[in-house]
Amino acid sequence: MQPRRFAWVEKVLKEITPKSSDFSQWYVDVIRKADMVDYAPMKGFMVMKPYSYRIWEFIQEQMDRRFKATGHQNAYFPLLIPEHLLAQEEEHIEGFSAEVAWVTMGGNEQLAERLAIRPTSETIIGAMYAQWIHSYRDLPVLINQWANVLRWEKATRPFLRTTEFLWQEGHTVHRTADEALAETLQQLEIYREVIEEYLAVPVIAGVKSAGERFAGAVDTYTLEALMGDGRALQSATSHFLGQHFSKAFQIQYLDEDGELKYGWTSSWGSSTRLIGAVIMVHGDDKGLRLPPKIAPIQVVIVPIGKGAEREAVVAHAKALEAQLANAFRVKLDDRDEFTPGYKFNDWEMRGVPLRVELGPKDLAKQQVVLARRDTGEKLSVSESQLVETVQHLLDAIQSELFRQALEFRESHTMSVESYQEMAQNGYRGFFRGDWCGSETCADHLKAETGMTIRCLPFNEEPVTGHCIVCGQTSRYRALFARAY
Amino acid sequence: MQPRRFAWVEKVLKEITPKSSDFSQWYVDVIRKADMVDYAPMKGFMVMKPYSYRIWEFIQEQMDRRFKATGHQNAYFPLLIPEHLLAQEEEHIEGFSAEVAWVTMGGNEQLAERLAIRPTSETIIGAMYAQWIHSYRDLPVLINQWANVLRWEKATRPFLRTTEFLWQEGHTVHRTADEALAETLQQLEIYREVIEEYLAVPVIAGVKSAGERFAGAVDTYTLEALMGDGRALQSATSHFLGQHFSKAFQIQYLDEDGELKYGWTSSWGSSTRLIGAVIMVHGDDKGLRLPPKIAPIQVVIVPIGKGAEREAVVAHAKALEAQLANAFRVKLDDRDEFTPGYKFNDWEMRGVPLRVELGPKDLAKQQVVLARRDTGEKLSVSESQLVETVQHLLDAIQSELFRQALEFRESHTMSVESYQEMAQNGYRGFFRGDWCGSETCADHLKAETGMTIRCLPFNEEPVTGHCIVCGQTSRYRALFARAY
Repeated sequence: MQPRRFAWVEKVLKEITPKSSDFSQWYVDVIRKADMVDYAPMKGFMVMKPYSYRIWEFIQEQMDRRFKATGHQNAYFPLLIPEHLLAQEEEHIEGFSAEVAWVTMGGNEQLAERLAIRPTSETIIGAMYAQWIHSYRDLPVLINQWANVLRWEKATRPFLRTTEFLWQEGHTVHRTADEALAETLQQLEIYREVIEEYLAVPVIAGVKSAGERFAGAVDTYTLEALMGDGRALQSATSHFLGQHFSKAFQIQYLDEDGELKYGWTSSWGSSTRLIGAVIMVHGDDKGLRLPPKIAPIQVVIVPIGKGAEREAVVAHAKALEAQLANAFRVKLDDRDEFTPGYKFNDWEMRGVPLRVELGPKDLAKQQVVLARRDTGEKLSVSESQLVETVQHLLDAIQSELFRQALEFRESHTMSVESYQEMAQNGYRGFFRGDWCGSETCADHLKAETGMTIRCLPFNEEPVTGHCIVCGQTSRYRALFARAY
Repeated sequence: MQPRRFAWVEKVLKEITPKSSDFSQWYVDVIRKADMVDYAPMKGFMVMKPYSYRIWEFIQEQMDRRFKATGHQNAYFPLLIPEHLLAQEEEHIEGFSAEVAWVTMGGNEQLAERLAIRPTSETIIGAMYAQWIHSYRDLPVLINQWANVLRWEKATRPFLRTTEFLWQEGHTVHRTADEALAETLQQLEIYREVIEEYLAVPVIAGVKSAGERFAGAVDTYTLEALMGDGRALQSATSHFLGQHFSKAFQIQYLDEDGELKYGWTSSWGSSTRLIGAVIMVHGDDKGLRLPPKIAPIQVVIVPIGKGAEREAVVAHAKALEAQLANAFRVKLDDRDEFTPGYKFNDWEMRGVPLRVELGPKDLAKQQVVLARRDTGEKLSVSESQLVETVQHLLDAIQSELFRQALEFRESHTMSVESYQEMAQNGYRGFFRGDWCGSETCADHLKAETGMTIRCLPFNEEPVTGHCIVCGQTSRYRALFARAY
């Protein structure tokens, strides 16, 4: 059969806005063309198609394994939260009230109290913990939940900010503040490990300033990544909640000394937003570039050749596929209605890390051609070396994507002594600067430039001694950026 | 430290209603005492605690592996469905309208159209498929979703019927009716395999009569299990939807012959209700009995001894735990505030299949005592034989639970020639009888006795030639029971 869809399909594939000319449009183009998402009929909702959901499954697997290894168990709490419960912690409801979707009818009846679709579950989980915890022997409680949550957002963007998203939320209770804080930081480190080692996205860890904290937290710890357009993405957060929620929900335990005490709690979350980070950090003008560890397809085999030659090539490609399938996630693209050129573009768009090309000449020489998605390099490899070469290259691609992302971040990070210097780069990139600690300065900066304090990075001290906004004595070294 | 909570805790543990005297109360007692669930503050909602959620994870793992092995991919569709979409397939909305929870406010605004929380996703998925499918080359579409759904139920019961529950729902589109039907039956067989081989729950497969079909289906296939009180539980269903949804949602494809045709669809689901089946089929007056393959803890080690002796025993028990942990899910219960007797009861309540008892005398003889939860049998085993004996016993327990359940079902199944005979057993158990095929008879039977047609089992033909209700010519052999 002739490649009848060739012409217009190639055209469609090339219709991606270049990353450099309009990053925002490029992002939307790529996620549609790479078959990651579709828009649902309701504004703000998206459908995660199999190709992106598979990435989420890999992320889940890595996170979940580490949660369990550190003593956490999964559980499931209700989707709906009665309004009075949601309102029980004052700062919390203040932070979330504008974003809540409300259920007011069940069956054909008006409900006596409206129910919130969970925007996050501290309140319903807190109410349950108060009933479960009696003694110091019941602590710590280390529970995680994989769930969907809803936040009624005005401006949405697939993966990054959607009305509904998938995430995990851990909720723990401890006997002491130290333990709760240690938990908070331990979970942040788990996130760092998965995000850097699996998603190949470098992050900067630190603590949020008061104005950027989770509603109800004593301290919010965060991992901040730099996207390809120089904007920051908060990639995962872990909250030390102190006794705010235990006091609001009466989470108390009888201590060994016979006294009734409030527990210390933490919560921590990561979401499908991470898939957005992968796209925005690694993608290029040809589409996605997926790190091998989370690529649904790690190797694609494209047979080349026509007529009778083609048959032999496809048969051999099938044998190669079977051989590679023992060690890798491999796909043979033997569709006969598309040209090899179309297929190259198609799989490049989908970010498959490695392509195996096999033509009649390769067959004769018992070799294949391997093409790297990250660098575009091609090399011929003897079939006898194929499995080990593929393994080696996938490892190399994983490292190379991280290296490139880190290099991009470093070359887009500058130190400033005054916030006016940020204008030089069109406010793109990370900026490091001293801060006096006043929210007035943070607010002023945001209003004037759109820049926010992403975090106060760990282990950094003031450098210049004066705040980049007001010039007064600085207390912190802060990381600034425009953020998603 | 002395076992200070001993007295009242032992009492609490014994406060389970016997299964034989009040099955319904026994069920509720067991799930609370075994730490499976808690009631949420909103009527009809439950919290799945870690112990039951872990069972769900094992079920998910087995189902998901088989779905993927048969070519399905997971995806994620929106929680909320606009009212007009939900109403697009007539029978479907008729079946579900009374059970829907409605979102009418988002943020602080009244919505122009109210949104249903999905009771099932045929409609929203159908609307998306209509956009995704163009050509016969796009078929089959084989997608599954793991999700929460809501049905506003009046009478609820943990796991069996709750307002919110977790499930998976598969939704597929095919080129021909035969393919869609083959898919429907293939998925039913996957359910059967997991339910019988992992949950050790025997099921009867068949097709639903018209009155018991899924709203919008051409045919609903089902697996029916018999619970310990003689009532049936519909354990999983698989629906051949014909072209009902493809016509309602315009799921069309251009066939190879150039004609535009409607696809043939299927949907199939299984839920956390399966955990209820495990409890009701295997549980006894001491609590749960969990099949080893899905038991969160397969082996519990209880050290016995006091004072200095105890220390040596616990140290040795830790070594055994480490050894067993390589092959099994094992837990050492070295809590010092409880007696061994309390612990025995506690783990029996939680249904742990195998208990290892280790005392000073066992230590001296380099042996342990193994106690089976299913039969109560105890045996002494040399430590050198421990791992293989445990493996052997877990396999034996898995088989024995299935055997007992099957025996119970067979001894609670009777053939009847007239429906009045069902009264003999107080309408408990499965009844096989001929049916004329008229819904009037089915309705009459239900109204008078509460018995429903659970299914028309595969490969069974009418036996007596006359309907057990009206006495007219029978067309089917049916399975009757009162059902959850």
